[in-house]
Amino acid sequence: MKWPAHGGQPAKIYHLTNLTKSEKVYDFSANLNPLGPPEQVKQQLPQSFDFIQSYPDPEYVEATRIVSKHENLQEKNVLLTNGGAEAIFLIAQLFSSKKALIIEPTFSEYRRACDVYNIEVISLSLSIDDDFSLPLNNLLTKLAEVDVVFLCRPNNPTGTMVSFDEMKLIIQKANQHETMVIVDEAFIHFAPSEFEDLSSLLANYPNLILLRSLTKIYAIPGLRLGYIVADEQKIHVLRMKQIPWSINSVVLALLPALFSDENFIPKTKHWLQEQMCQLKTELKKLDFYISPTVVNFYLLKDTVKNNKELFHFLLQHQIIPRHTQTFKGLDGDYLRLAVRSEEENNSLLHVLRLWREQQ
Amino acid sequence: MKWPAHGGQPAKIYHLTNLTKSEKVYDFSANLNPLGPPEQVKQQLPQSFDFIQSYPDPEYVEATRIVSKHENLQEKNVLLTNGGAEAIFLIAQLFSSKKALIIEPTFSEYRRACDVYNIEVISLSLSIDDDFSLPLNNLLTKLAEVDVVFLCRPNNPTGTMVSFDEMKLIIQKANQHETMVIVDEAFIHFAPSEFEDLSSLLANYPNLILLRSLTKIYAIPGLRLGYIVADEQKIHVLRMKQIPWSINSVVLALLPALFSDENFIPKTKHWLQEQMCQLKTELKKLDFYISPTVVNFYLLKDTVKNNKELFHFLLQHQIIPRHTQTFKGLDGDYLRLAVRSEEENNSLLHVLRLWREQQ
Repeated sequence: MKWPAHGGQPAKIYHLTNLTKSEKVYDFSANLNPLGPPEQVKQQLPQSFDFIQSYPDPEYVEATRIVSKHENLQEKNVLLTNGGAEAIFLIAQLFSSKKALIIEPTFSEYRRACDVYNIEVISLSLSIDDDFSLPLNNLLTKLAEVDVVFLCRPNNPTGTMVSFDEMKLIIQKANQHETMVIVDEAFIHFAPSEFEDLSSLLANYPNLILLRSLTKIYAIPGLRLGYIVADEQKIHVLRMKQIPWSINSVVLALLPALFSDENFIPKTKHWLQEQMCQLKTELKKLDFYISPTVVNFYLLKDTVKNNKELFHFLLQHQIIPRHTQTFKGLDGDYLRLAVRSEEENNSLLHVLRLWREQQ
Repeated sequence: MKWPAHGGQPAKIYHLTNLTKSEKVYDFSANLNPLGPPEQVKQQLPQSFDFIQSYPDPEYVEATRIVSKHENLQEKNVLLTNGGAEAIFLIAQLFSSKKALIIEPTFSEYRRACDVYNIEVISLSLSIDDDFSLPLNNLLTKLAEVDVVFLCRPNNPTGTMVSFDEMKLIIQKANQHETMVIVDEAFIHFAPSEFEDLSSLLANYPNLILLRSLTKIYAIPGLRLGYIVADEQKIHVLRMKQIPWSINSVVLALLPALFSDENFIPKTKHWLQEQMCQLKTELKKLDFYISPTVVNFYLLKDTVKNNKELFHFLLQHQIIPRHTQTFKGLDGDYLRLAVRSEEENNSLLHVLRLWREQQ
């Protein structure tokens, strides 16, 4: 059986497990904003017929201006991409046939991009014994050995966040060894405001590149939009490697609608923290291990019973977790669960209680 | 002044030439179906809000089935891509650090993709003296020297079409030298039915790969959809190199609407041939050279007066031609013009008559 490498594919999961998919299922396998896209996007979408008939501006000048302004960045430091995925592959190209460090378990596309560009990968492992915290000293000693480090902050699938000070230490040390640090901040918009993003370090550390996604926080995974933040010279080099028109006109035309509600992100963060607090309390009552997440997903493990059986049990009860068969070091013994709407989270808790009662 | 490498950018052209852009302009610089997208697409588009909230199926299973069926191909031979551009870059990756042959003038992204993947390029030139026909013997002798040939059929920007028999000869000879032949059929859907596409050769020639676009014939350049046709093994290798979710959910969801009118392509071809026939007659009356095109665009040259002045003259009269500054061997001495609606084509003829009267 070949497990799909990504969440958000309910039909495939039911097919693989030989279970029957009900009409209504709760998809906890994709890490999207449970509040859905901003209302203004829905209102604007029908107008996009005009835009699908034109090529996107291949330089995305106006869109880059809008995104940079909204995200408090300078235009010259921003390269828009077809989701975070194009950003990862573009950056990997820079290190073709070199050597990379990846800290597992993490998003699988760093390793895949390294494979495509013939980059040798060495890895470090996060462990449940340390609550999936970064093995900092171990990492620092590896920096001299590699050309590039891929780091996901907050990390997918654990939801954990390396502190700003630790990151600064890593980037400083890496800089001494001329090692690039690629920090994927795809989920940064979900983290509580006290967790600072790393854009303030860009001016002093030319070895830092940030990746961001707008797909997840704005719940528009079908429209594909992400961006790279780096110094001007690297943005130029990456732009030269980018395929033309990789971003579609619809998402470019919808940017003003996407950003029109200035409270959208603060509202999401606030709502999410309340939900997460309730969820953690209830899940701990039920004796599950939960990774110390700061965002909209977490790892769950039943420390008593078989987690592969739990995976099937949830599927049978219309709950679709993200399997962890394709995450190195997790191998199916954990489930990754998204935070969904209050109703859906309560359904999840209900089914997990049933599971406990069966013991 | 840096000329943009692609058409469809009216504002940029007016800015570069220091001319004033009117509210209403006629854009002859992008080679799209002048009939616009099928009506069903417009009707379906508002429903796409549901789809933008989901990740595209990373394997595009259902979409591949729909496209293959519509295009009379087998699913195992088809890889959907983000426009023709992703197809070109994916294929170029296969020849990283090798040697390619490109026949100029042609679509600029073959050379750009070769540059990105460090592929050495040698080139042959089409000439107005031979009506831009392929220098067949010259090409055949070069096949042993290179690993891959990029050929655009019908060719952009000339609109010319190498015959099926000549193509077969090239592919056979290339096969003896283990040279791959990449044929970009991005405009094949516009060509009269007597011009056969090359899919029938795929079974016998493993050294043939076809690229197609759905962006142009369906006039949806903003939605980005193309595909590669090749043997199963190569499709597999290329899929492994593709970034996840490079195709957006909106275009995937619109596929049934896109293909619902079975007469759309025949209707387009018929309409186009009539328009082209009238246009050619009138343009020849005005003593312009026109490349022997079989599709929806052509090269135009004033053999008497300065073509760069003609370019400015047209812009001043709200007609936007595609400059040819970025096409090797044309260097601005030609204009590429799309066939547009009858009204627009008449406006073009009107302005060209004015230009002639000024002489």
